Amino acid sequence: MKNTNKKARIILADNIKRLRKKRGLTQENLSFLSGLHRTYISSVERSERNISIDAIEKISKALKIPLHKLLEDL
Amino acid sequence: MKNTNKKARIILADNIKRLRKKRGLTQENLSFLSGLHRTYISSVERSERNISIDAIEKISKALKIPLHKLLEDL
Repeated sequence: MKNTNKKARIILADNIKRLRKKRGLTQENLSFLSGLHRTYISSVERSERNISIDAIEKISKALKIPLHKLLEDL
Repeated sequence: MKNTNKKARIILADNIKRLRKKRGLTQENLSFLSGLHRTYISSVERSERNISIDAIEKISKALKIPLHKLLEDL
């Protein structure tokens, strides 16, 4: 982890966007796979939502990514 | 990460408890350092709360632990 002051929401948003695109998924696809609304996914990716651990877990499972990988500050 | 089905809340709770004790902190101490209520800390450590990313960030800063370390399934 770099010693930045990057906010948790931004770290999470960057990782979700990056990993979603790496898997060739649209927000619509991720919405379907996670069971979360597309506009919710969109707002999380813009760091606008104070997303909960249960919703982070849904995204982690949908992307098949270990939970902690979504919070890594790359 | 082990390939278990351990829930995200439980992974987080286990890590917070372990790292808090490693630092010799009580729930009261962690409450003071994070700005979260002691009964809230207590319920998070019992996996009862669907804690948000902003609150996880407060705990991460209070424990001086990189965010992703709190979500690692050890």
